[in-house]
Amino acid sequence: MIETELGNLRRSHYSDQITSSMDGSEVTVMGWVLTVRGHGNISFATIKDKNGSLSVIAKKGDCSDEIREKISSLKAHSSIGVTGKVKSSEKAPGGYEIIPTELRVYSEVTKIPPFEPTVKTVKNIDTRLEVRPIDLRRNNLQHVFKIRSLVLKTIRDYFNDQNFVEINTPKMIATATEGGAALFPIFYYNKEAFLAQSPQLYKEQLTMSFEKVFEIAPIFGAEPSRTNRHLAEAISIDLEEAFVDYNDVMNRIEEIIKVSINAVNEYIKNNPDSEFTPTPVPETIPRYTYDDLVERMQKAGAKTEWGDDLYPSNLKKIGLDGFYFITDWPLGNHLI
Amino acid sequence: MIETELGNLRRSHYSDQITSSMDGSEVTVMGWVLTVRGHGNISFATIKDKNGSLSVIAKKGDCSDEIREKISSLKAHSSIGVTGKVKSSEKAPGGYEIIPTELRVYSEVTKIPPFEPTVKTVKNIDTRLEVRPIDLRRNNLQHVFKIRSLVLKTIRDYFNDQNFVEINTPKMIATATEGGAALFPIFYYNKEAFLAQSPQLYKEQLTMSFEKVFEIAPIFGAEPSRTNRHLAEAISIDLEEAFVDYNDVMNRIEEIIKVSINAVNEYIKNNPDSEFTPTPVPETIPRYTYDDLVERMQKAGAKTEWGDDLYPSNLKKIGLDGFYFITDWPLGNHLI
Repeated sequence: MIETELGNLRRSHYSDQITSSMDGSEVTVMGWVLTVRGHGNISFATIKDKNGSLSVIAKKGDCSDEIREKISSLKAHSSIGVTGKVKSSEKAPGGYEIIPTELRVYSEVTKIPPFEPTVKTVKNIDTRLEVRPIDLRRNNLQHVFKIRSLVLKTIRDYFNDQNFVEINTPKMIATATEGGAALFPIFYYNKEAFLAQSPQLYKEQLTMSFEKVFEIAPIFGAEPSRTNRHLAEAISIDLEEAFVDYNDVMNRIEEIIKVSINAVNEYIKNNPDSEFTPTPVPETIPRYTYDDLVERMQKAGAKTEWGDDLYPSNLKKIGLDGFYFITDWPLGNHLI
Repeated sequence: MIETELGNLRRSHYSDQITSSMDGSEVTVMGWVLTVRGHGNISFATIKDKNGSLSVIAKKGDCSDEIREKISSLKAHSSIGVTGKVKSSEKAPGGYEIIPTELRVYSEVTKIPPFEPTVKTVKNIDTRLEVRPIDLRRNNLQHVFKIRSLVLKTIRDYFNDQNFVEINTPKMIATATEGGAALFPIFYYNKEAFLAQSPQLYKEQLTMSFEKVFEIAPIFGAEPSRTNRHLAEAISIDLEEAFVDYNDVMNRIEEIIKVSINAVNEYIKNNPDSEFTPTPVPETIPRYTYDDLVERMQKAGAKTEWGDDLYPSNLKKIGLDGFYFITDWPLGNHLI
């Protein structure tokens, strides 16, 4: 009988911790089924775990018939554990195969998933969101989430190296932080409150006590406009610093962008299967005044007046792309 | 005239980066005034910055009369910049004094603060909260916030070392995560939504894709009860892991508690002026079943029945203190 409980069995190795030099060693691996093939007296399965994939090969005589038959019956995404012997194999991923001596099936898939786990693109976003956990098992999305996690770590490491103090400011607040912005109202017991759209006032106050502070946390904004520059909820990377001016803050942001791009490029280099293209690291990030840009856009034939928002379509007309700062924004027209 | 703008002047050193061996060097320091004394021809000021404090000594003849007189007139918490020469001095904090050649006063205090910046305790919490930024300049609170920041870093470093993926889950959600708990309702445009009281469902789903995930983020709970075990808003440290059971998760939490206590103890050792007492690191954290504790509390004379919450007052009767896990909590009585 094939066990279905975790019991006392634990993973001894991730797929990338096993090498062909471990030929003959016993290991226990766990993960989910990527592909399965069965040819009568032999069953093959590719198992994915957090760090990569490995092959399990069950030949008649090498393991029990029960295990061999069970493996060939498994559907993609089934969650399993395999104890077996490492066998060096040049053809297999990682240079080895596992000959199973014990198989546990923790979660057996009965339905066929709407798309293969190996496909690169799935066109229908609703289909993907319906089965999001298995959508996120696809290779490129695995890398996206891991890179995102790495960038957060890189930015926090930067702040820590630069001796910033991490703060956490309240997200339920009594009044609006910045004048014009739309806030989400909350029922706070019997009172009205709002979701914070910025830690601005708190971080300014805390800078008086700690000089250099940062917070990476959700912000909330009930902006009615539907553009790709507005999100009702987003993660904000906030810093504030004393005894500097806005040029120094732009220098900081420039450094943060550089260390982040470097970290992503390094990840891409170490994970060629991600198939992402490295981004060139800017030497400096150009800084334009609002006045300068309005003038240039008008010369380029854009219908815009001093005081207007700077629309991406108009900025494109003067070739503005990639990273840039806009400074000296007119007062009374503050945009989030 | 004493300048009041930052201009192009920048700090060259923090107080703890200057040593007596720099005797004669020119430095620029910035910070806020801790204490000031003036005796006719000589003015002393102690300046605090992020990393410590330093002495400025203005003697007639060593610097302009204007600087000397201005220094003696400054009130505590005024924000200043001083350029001057380092002078080795055994009596001064850090083993040096600064002889000023330039003084800038960025923000001059006119009112007397309700308490001295050097006092260890201020009884009235309202007084403290009214001037919270200067309350937080007090030495013990500086250490509390820095330790808090260090603990967050330590825990994230643990998760990163253990190959967890950092995730961010939505805080505005359509339905309740866990049955019984009270949620804060939000007006989400024209719909009703709630503030998430736990990333539970999201992290479970993401574990299917990434095996090991963590999130450190705000959680929200509209619990009506006013005890020190409930907060309307708090920062939650959440982890989830695949191919393990609840004992493994308790092992993780145990490790996180240990690395955190070790980090705090190390900080206390390196910062003796914090005057905090190190916490002994537990070798293991005891695990009790709910049934066991109810039985022991009943034997100790506590009025409690199977199915009741375990009240701190009753747990004290059986000497339960410090860190412990309670396992096998009865279903249908789930408490947050």
